[in-house]
Amino acid sequence: MKLYDASVTPNCRRVRIFLAEKGITIPLVAVDLAKLEHKKPEYEAINPVQQVPALELDDGTIITESVAICRYFEEIQPKPSLLGATIMERVEIEMWQRRLELNLFMPVMAVFRHSHPAMAEMESPQIPAWSEANKPRVLSFLKILNEHLRGRYFICAEKFTVADITALVALDFLRPARLTIPEEMIHILRWHREVSERASTKA
Amino acid sequence: MKLYDASVTPNCRRVRIFLAEKGITIPLVAVDLAKLEHKKPEYEAINPVQQVPALELDDGTIITESVAICRYFEEIQPKPSLLGATIMERVEIEMWQRRLELNLFMPVMAVFRHSHPAMAEMESPQIPAWSEANKPRVLSFLKILNEHLRGRYFICAEKFTVADITALVALDFLRPARLTIPEEMIHILRWHREVSERASTKA
Repeated sequence: MKLYDASVTPNCRRVRIFLAEKGITIPLVAVDLAKLEHKKPEYEAINPVQQVPALELDDGTIITESVAICRYFEEIQPKPSLLGATIMERVEIEMWQRRLELNLFMPVMAVFRHSHPAMAEMESPQIPAWSEANKPRVLSFLKILNEHLRGRYFICAEKFTVADITALVALDFLRPARLTIPEEMIHILRWHREVSERASTKA
Repeated sequence: MKLYDASVTPNCRRVRIFLAEKGITIPLVAVDLAKLEHKKPEYEAINPVQQVPALELDDGTIITESVAICRYFEEIQPKPSLLGATIMERVEIEMWQRRLELNLFMPVMAVFRHSHPAMAEMESPQIPAWSEANKPRVLSFLKILNEHLRGRYFICAEKFTVADITALVALDFLRPARLTIPEEMIHILRWHREVSERASTKA
């Protein structure tokens, strides 16, 4: 088994943290996005949509999409559960995972990809107006998240889950997107400080 | 149990088709998006991110996000399985579901929301350049999908799954987005014709 990985990519980081929380170690194969290796025929044969990460099983089966890779590992090693151990946990975690992806992770990435000079070649055309349009979306959802985290140690299911991983990776990408968590959002800041202390977040 | 629903919304249609395939009937509560009912305090109390659909259980629990609502019904009524009956089915379906969402469903919606006059109030600001930037993404993924469907009756797992629902809803939204399936994409056209004959697609 091996994982095609690009160290700086948020979706790759989500999978690496997920694996670290499970205590699973697998060989990483570095894909150099700066050299556009993910757009070359060799990688396109692995993933036709030209994205990392991709997991290759020993029988040659390829699994792409970070959430599908996480589900594979949850299925083959259910503990510790990061996608939920009961029906209502699984549903609540999927709901929060989605909310965070659609209202935080993707808007933060849009701000970054459509404004940062380093992305001029990869995100073509860059549309600065689309970057700007996503900034208030990020702020608006941060307000909802801050209120939600008041009195909660983790985002949902009263334990650390994949939703916390998605939120952490998105929030840590505020810096390259040249955004910050407003200092009055004390519940997010407390959550972020505590979750960042987990060893898995260095993965 | 009741489902807050807006008939024309693709994410609501995904859930309605999913329920029809399961043979599940539940009361629908219409949310009038044209009157911006989803942005009023009454609905915000149900879903703070102001989106439909939302499922309210008999004990008052609210489940939002279409994929989380689908997962709830898959969990309480596993047959017919639309999210996968085995580990490798579940992983393959999640992979395709994601690919279709990120590379087809969302780009089609971006083309529509940022170009159609009817969306001027709801999608503010509309960014025509973002609509244009998504058109080649749609076409590029349709090529991959057409090739994938060569010799396949369904998108994955050799049966009808939630991935087929997501693809159908996205493709049926090409028309309001003022796009079409190119006539040379005969495998997509064949698949679309056959899947559209299912009674559930009228839901």
